[in-house]
Amino acid sequence: MFNTASRGWAMACVIGLTAAGRAGSDEGMWLFSAPPVEQLERDHGMAITPDWLLHLQRSSVRFSSGGSGALVSADGLVLTNHHVGADAIQKLGDPAHDYLREGFAAATREDELACHDLELNVLVSVEDVTDRVQAAVAAGMSAESAFAARRSAMAEIEKESLAATGLRSDVVTLYQGGAYHLYRAKKYTDVRLVFAPEQQIAFFGGDADNFEFPRFNLDVCFFRAYEHGRPARVEHHLAWAESGVADGDLVFVSGHPGHTDRANTVAELVSLRDRRLPLDLQILNRLEAVVGAYAAEGPEERRQARQDLLGVENGRKARSGVLAGLLEPRIMAGKREAEARLRRTPEGERGGAASPYARIEEAQRTLDGILVRYRLLEGAAAFNSQYFWNARGILRAAEERGRPSGTRLREYRESNLESLEHQLFSDEPIYDAFEVVKLTDSLTFLATTLGGDDELVGRVLAGRSPRDRAEELVAGTMLGRRPLTGMGTAVADTRRELYDGGAEAVAASTDAMLGLARLVDAESRRVRGIAEAAQEVKQQAHGELARARFAREGAAGYPDATFTLRLAYGTVRGLDGGAKAATAPFTTFGGLFARAATTGEAPPFDLPPRWRAFRDSPAANEAFRQTHFNFISTADIIGGNSGSPVVNRKGELVGVIFDGNIDSLVLDIAYDDLRARAVAVDATAIVAALEHVYHAAGLVRELVAGDGHDR
Amino acid sequence: MFNTASRGWAMACVIGLTAAGRAGSDEGMWLFSAPPVEQLERDHGMAITPDWLLHLQRSSVRFSSGGSGALVSADGLVLTNHHVGADAIQKLGDPAHDYLREGFAAATREDELACHDLELNVLVSVEDVTDRVQAAVAAGMSAESAFAARRSAMAEIEKESLAATGLRSDVVTLYQGGAYHLYRAKKYTDVRLVFAPEQQIAFFGGDADNFEFPRFNLDVCFFRAYEHGRPARVEHHLAWAESGVADGDLVFVSGHPGHTDRANTVAELVSLRDRRLPLDLQILNRLEAVVGAYAAEGPEERRQARQDLLGVENGRKARSGVLAGLLEPRIMAGKREAEARLRRTPEGERGGAASPYARIEEAQRTLDGILVRYRLLEGAAAFNSQYFWNARGILRAAEERGRPSGTRLREYRESNLESLEHQLFSDEPIYDAFEVVKLTDSLTFLATTLGGDDELVGRVLAGRSPRDRAEELVAGTMLGRRPLTGMGTAVADTRRELYDGGAEAVAASTDAMLGLARLVDAESRRVRGIAEAAQEVKQQAHGELARARFAREGAAGYPDATFTLRLAYGTVRGLDGGAKAATAPFTTFGGLFARAATTGEAPPFDLPPRWRAFRDSPAANEAFRQTHFNFISTADIIGGNSGSPVVNRKGELVGVIFDGNIDSLVLDIAYDDLRARAVAVDATAIVAALEHVYHAAGLVRELVAGDGHDR
Repeated sequence: MFNTASRGWAMACVIGLTAAGRAGSDEGMWLFSAPPVEQLERDHGMAITPDWLLHLQRSSVRFSSGGSGALVSADGLVLTNHHVGADAIQKLGDPAHDYLREGFAAATREDELACHDLELNVLVSVEDVTDRVQAAVAAGMSAESAFAARRSAMAEIEKESLAATGLRSDVVTLYQGGAYHLYRAKKYTDVRLVFAPEQQIAFFGGDADNFEFPRFNLDVCFFRAYEHGRPARVEHHLAWAESGVADGDLVFVSGHPGHTDRANTVAELVSLRDRRLPLDLQILNRLEAVVGAYAAEGPEERRQARQDLLGVENGRKARSGVLAGLLEPRIMAGKREAEARLRRTPEGERGGAASPYARIEEAQRTLDGILVRYRLLEGAAAFNSQYFWNARGILRAAEERGRPSGTRLREYRESNLESLEHQLFSDEPIYDAFEVVKLTDSLTFLATTLGGDDELVGRVLAGRSPRDRAEELVAGTMLGRRPLTGMGTAVADTRRELYDGGAEAVAASTDAMLGLARLVDAESRRVRGIAEAAQEVKQQAHGELARARFAREGAAGYPDATFTLRLAYGTVRGLDGGAKAATAPFTTFGGLFARAATTGEAPPFDLPPRWRAFRDSPAANEAFRQTHFNFISTADIIGGNSGSPVVNRKGELVGVIFDGNIDSLVLDIAYDDLRARAVAVDATAIVAALEHVYHAAGLVRELVAGDGHDR
Repeated sequence: MFNTASRGWAMACVIGLTAAGRAGSDEGMWLFSAPPVEQLERDHGMAITPDWLLHLQRSSVRFSSGGSGALVSADGLVLTNHHVGADAIQKLGDPAHDYLREGFAAATREDELACHDLELNVLVSVEDVTDRVQAAVAAGMSAESAFAARRSAMAEIEKESLAATGLRSDVVTLYQGGAYHLYRAKKYTDVRLVFAPEQQIAFFGGDADNFEFPRFNLDVCFFRAYEHGRPARVEHHLAWAESGVADGDLVFVSGHPGHTDRANTVAELVSLRDRRLPLDLQILNRLEAVVGAYAAEGPEERRQARQDLLGVENGRKARSGVLAGLLEPRIMAGKREAEARLRRTPEGERGGAASPYARIEEAQRTLDGILVRYRLLEGAAAFNSQYFWNARGILRAAEERGRPSGTRLREYRESNLESLEHQLFSDEPIYDAFEVVKLTDSLTFLATTLGGDDELVGRVLAGRSPRDRAEELVAGTMLGRRPLTGMGTAVADTRRELYDGGAEAVAASTDAMLGLARLVDAESRRVRGIAEAAQEVKQQAHGELARARFAREGAAGYPDATFTLRLAYGTVRGLDGGAKAATAPFTTFGGLFARAATTGEAPPFDLPPRWRAFRDSPAANEAFRQTHFNFISTADIIGGNSGSPVVNRKGELVGVIFDGNIDSLVLDIAYDDLRARAVAVDATAIVAALEHVYHAAGLVRELVAGDGHDR
């Protein structure tokens, strides 16, 4: 399943070398401000209009937790994937309520459950601010100064925009510095859970079937955006298509692909292949073991850890897929050839050792040199605890808020503070035993990676073993909602107090986790500073290359993915099996029942009780069994596209993206339509399941009617 | 659970600095040739006699696969842990027979199942050959020459002994070069499975309860040694005690602790902490993810992969425990102090930069420098496939057998060939899909560790992706039993033919996996050569330190564990709970039922169907429920001791070791009796379960009567 948009390693390092793709291919993650008008006309005879685009844009939703969704009723009803919502659903649970396992359906609007820290954004407008951002950087500036000047200009634009419009305002970097756009979005922070099926049917087949097709997943859930305590009335939402898609149909995907590396130089790809992905996988592999062992301790531990575990398994499989692509000689050879060609252009060769390519390579070496330390400290791989994130957030907020917005660490800029606070004060439950397990493991990783006798390790462990130190830190912090023993429902939580108290209160605090954050912050900031300067060097070099190309070819291409709204399109198409049988583009509910039967219904192929009962009832008739369940298309998607609406030519909802097949993981570095496919839940299946299996008549009416007034 | 004896990294590097332990402590893994007579007399008022010792020695069994056991009837019946036998049990299965899951009970002797590649050894005699081995090494020899001379002398002694006695003959290195002993053992290679319970009761609680106590595991199984096609008649076997042990009882453990690091110098321990264990854990973590994902694909995949997975989980938990000990500041500080004291002795300081400690440190640096390459190549972490092991075995056998025994790689010495061939020609089933998965992952590990553009990586991958190359290699080898498609039960297998054909046949072979082995062998041998020379330097330095100490103090201590037979002793004793409740030294069958109930019988706490039915029957009465199931003692054990018989003062069997608690893992580096405990299955429980749950009356009679003649 696709999910988290960011890879957690510094900023993206991308540029659109891959322009428009070859004629006839459905390549591209297009900007709504620069849609593939000609390609669609040429290859599919489809003319898209500004109104069609605007309606789709304003019906599309970004989940700040990393994922996509769509407004599907005038009353703010939002459809997304179950796995996009799962983190929020898990946090709503407690030892007596396991909504992931049991599912959830609000009987009335009053029963909809308010999420702890979900934020939804709907893109309202886009403005090109490239000139203003570029003007801030003077020729001859050092990388550090250039970075600071650019950051400051971006923060100023955002602050002005926020003040002027009240909308969430982000300057986004496209073509890795070739362009800067101001994205303004309507923000919803009161988001409530409306409906979720059991995770067992949402993620039927589990890790084994993840990134595979044929597939049988009801990977959907519904939230509702609220404003002023009432369901948000929205102007745009997608209509539910009356009929499903057919083989060969053209479909569109509107969502937020998180990150691609298609325009990386060879030096950057080699670093990704030999350093960054292996380090990510090393960290994920050990997390999988540690979290898996904790989950095996009992049912409650399993409930607490399940989402972490699924996320880790998913991340492992996704990164392994990208790595496999990078280890595919034909792909790397293609990249090398393309780069060799481009290096022979005037802008590629200019400057010799100071050529853009050489500067990128040099900056990449710097990044590689600090990679491990960056991940351990700034990436907090050494301090895997929610309390630590809270502690760092409070520590840095106290320092950063005392400075002008433009000089702050970027996530503390004025225009982002509301979103930051929404995260920082989340009242999600934190489980101390689980925190201790994760923190022990990550402190051990720190010690063995830097060496047990390293000076920083000595300071962090403070003369204790990782286990003892982790217990001490967790026991000694109040930076989260902590039930007070023997005090009923009373909780201790000093976050708000310290945040509001500012630098003085934070300096006076003896909170143990805050102490740890303080202890490592100078070194963490130092490493981040080196990374930011190196990224600036890359950004300038990539920007030069991109602008030279725009001048030569026009800006007809699409930029690498950056978790901003993109339009993709594709054809519903099965897979040629080669030596094996071909794969049809659709699965059905009947196929689900067959798959469960042939695997003996052993986990992860067991049906939830409700589905077993339904299957054995007369209602599970032939018509139901033949309903299309999941389908595949050639649309160009990647992690972050999870939950993206799939619409037909009329702009009506026909499905929701939830995955790519294993061969699609290579889309991180290059588009392919031979074996790569986007996998979606068919809209027909959603309605059929809601109606027949869940008897959710009200929800079905709202979907079909487009609002909930007759519920 | 304790299991594999070796850590897979070159030779042990140990010496008995830890002499006898403090008075009153039950420390020690004693040589049968130098038992702790005084300590037992002093602390427990127990006088052990030569006859008592000899009987225990000759009733003890070593499993060459890594584990211990005991002869328990005159007809060659052998008791060990289920997890020691599990590998052999798994290999006996096929898609229609899952003996791990279902258990196995031979109705008659004719039904006993012959194992594919199990070898059992019973130690017959020990001879001190230190002088002869040391005499081979002349002063001033280079490390390489000294290593070769020592290897040659050892091989010669072994060859002579084999010729003279027909017994398996191994010269073992003790006190890391302080002494060399010739161990002669009776060898059994026709070993058959008699009885195994369901793995679910043998390993109740799975990874979650592993290395924990209280515990509820029937971790036993029975094999029978055969000779000339008939059950072996043995002179010595352990009698079954009439009553169980009580709190405070003295017990003895006779088994084969695999490896300890107690006498390592600080430099060696730092390497273990910062390099070797982290690398091991990295490899294990990725294996756990890969094998786990394969096992999740379906029931047959789970059957194929289960043993691998359990082994990996177990190894991960065991190594994490040792690492936790090394990261415990008090333990490392103790090691540093002890070493500082010893370095002030004449033999410690002699030579300055050429002092034994300095030489060990220097050699350790050399080993650290090649660690990764050694593990990838010689350790085959880059080629994780049984076919590769077979290919290398055949390739090297062809070369080595053409040389004099004393100059061969040690595992190819004349006296070891029979055991080697027993492994090499095992007719265990190999599953190609599983091999491809493991090989793909390990080739990926090679590529990312050395870098995708590394020259060796390029040669190994031969222009293909890891996945394609793995498929090509597996499809292109016949070095294992391979069913021929469409040919009924016919199998292809060229191992014997190539082995018998020698160097010429091997050189002419176009087998793909043999080609890979050939491709990397020069580099693999080169790295091994560096490691062996560095080990020789360490061995000489440790030997000097040890001999100086013997001269000063006498050889009263015990050497570090080396998978040779050792005597440990301990007291049946519970655990002081500190702030929590104390833990009694026993669990009961009633406790098992309670544990299953409180965990909702969700895996890994589900009882096998037979046990559920029994629990709900009147036969599960109060007397049965109160039967002692598992117990703990302070005996000094480590991995490899699994399956060790536990006997009382009279030398009667009262239990079988199957684990240590989590706090016992630190015993790798230092003894402790405050929190560390050895965990055993109570002999009373074995008989009660066989009788009441399995109705194995014949087996019970054989155990109680001591032979099977009245069956």
